Amino acid sequence: MTDAAASRAPFVHARQVHFGECDPARIVYTPRFLDFAMEAVDAFFRERLGAGFYELNADHGIGTPFVRVELDFRSPVTPRDVLATEVRVARLGGGSLHLALTGRVGGRVAFESRLVCAFVAGDGTAMRPIRVPDRFRGALQPDP
Amino acid sequence: MTDAAASRAPFVHARQVHFGECDPARIVYTPRFLDFAMEAVDAFFRERLGAGFYELNADHGIGTPFVRVELDFRSPVTPRDVLATEVRVARLGGGSLHLALTGRVGGRVAFESRLVCAFVAGDGTAMRPIRVPDRFRGALQPDP
Amino acid sequence: MTDAAASRAPFVHARQVHFGECDPARIVYTPRFLDFAMEAVDAFFRERLGAGFYELNADHGIGTPFVRVELDFRSPVTPRDVLATEVRVARLGGGSLHLALTGRVGGRVAFESRLVCAFVAGDGTAMRPIRVPDRFRGALQPDP
Amino acid sequence: MTDAAASRAPFVHARQVHFGECDPARIVYTPRFLDFAMEAVDAFFRERLGAGFYELNADHGIGTPFVRVELDFRSPVTPRDVLATEVRVARLGGGSLHLALTGRVGGRVAFESRLVCAFVAGDGTAMRPIRVPDRFRGALQPDP
Repeated sequence: MTDAAASRAPFVHARQVHFGECDPARIVYTPRFLDFAMEAVDAFFRERLGAGFYELNADHGIGTPFVRVELDFRSPVTPRDVLATEVRVARLGGGSLHLALTGRVGGRVAFESRLVCAFVAGDGTAMRPIRVPDRFRGALQPDP
Repeated sequence: MTDAAASRAPFVHARQVHFGECDPARIVYTPRFLDFAMEAVDAFFRERLGAGFYELNADHGIGTPFVRVELDFRSPVTPRDVLATEVRVARLGGGSLHLALTGRVGGRVAFESRLVCAFVAGDGTAMRPIRVPDRFRGALQPDP
Repeated sequence: MTDAAASRAPFVHARQVHFGECDPARIVYTPRFLDFAMEAVDAFFRERLGAGFYELNADHGIGTPFVRVELDFRSPVTPRDVLATEVRVARLGGGSLHLALTGRVGGRVAFESRLVCAFVAGDGTAMRPIRVPDRFRGALQPDP
Repeated sequence: MTDAAASRAPFVHARQVHFGECDPARIVYTPRFLDFAMEAVDAFFRERLGAGFYELNADHGIGTPFVRVELDFRSPVTPRDVLATEVRVARLGGGSLHLALTGRVGGRVAFESRLVCAFVAGDGTAMRPIRVPDRFRGALQPDP
């Protein structure tokens, strides 16, 4: 862990939950939590790397396809809630990144997630694994 | 395992992948795989229980909130593909159900998923855990 | 138009555009603009009426099913953009509301939309048309 | 109208409505109807042109950005319904296509939609208007 990482505040992405993200059981539809998680990771990349999924793809020719996702649902969420999702780096491998997310509504935990992505050059079905570029590695050191 | 379960063909839900489910990297956007998984579980319930998520909720007052999801992404999927998702019961607990899914494009595995849901009475934020109703237990015995 | 309406600043809902809202053509997928429009209307109701779609439904037993939507797409949008959607009341009928939206990225118009919703009691398929409640009518007078 | 067009059966795209496409009012969430409409147009292109949105984009370098959409909602739809959407060509311009859609559940009309798309070369924000290619014009003659 670098000093920079040690002194960083945890990254938190907060946003209102929407009506259309809920289902007839009147709570957020399960798959939307993975949308929330990916949206938080995208915002995290934008802040830490200066490039979100779109800019990585369009400007750098880099993709970060996800190879594994785990989600644990702790409590239901509705449009009355603002969801604040904390994103932490759990591990930085040579060509992969392990992230740990916690989504909270106030002090209550709504969901936890672990995601693993690979770094690749290219996109679509012509992707070639690459090492996480050196210019990004400092910003992706594991959080305390 | 009952004889009925032993003789059952595996349940498979097949459908075309759509353009709008793909992202600028020109492959299916990661969270859509959880949409695919839930859609396959819904179709599985409709066939096995005679009631999908909607009918369970509206006609039976029963919800099946998911408490845990795992997804492993094996190969990319595009709108050129028809995705065939096999749904198997891995374990039937007193008040919970463990499902194992495999999504394939032709002979190629696209994703694997394990999902756990609880059975509850009510909906929204007033949900009370219940035992999986007896009338559904026969149809939810673990697949071979 | 009431003095209150005359002096009101236009309502604007701004938010980042997401990677997963774009398609393989690398711009926002057409139907997402209707998601953006509805999200802006929901935020508008929350501010003006003190109740969004969810609270109207859950707390007031009121629905606002849309009966007509028009969208004109003026320029493409990507995740590089923050979309600011202005919501104006075009007409308040006895039991219906006409809204006019303009979505902008900086000074550029991205889309325009006109939406008409009815007010109903109940939900699902048992909806009964009602007059827009008096307690809401003041807040829904046409914008200048 | 060509003889081929005169003798063609109307194109209909049918599919089950999903739980996750409905909102807490227990009916399909308004923006999902535009998803249904676009999905039907995509299937129509796949059948008539031999290339859907994805193949037009990836294999032909052609996009069909929509410039205008109208939707009229006639009756609510739930996951109890199979939605059958008829797609007709209303007008073929030099560089644009006008489509008229009717979504039905059994004999009941659920929605009607008119959509206009332009044909362009390229994608993203570097799109150049083109004439609808000659090899597609025969298949896109107005329906009776």
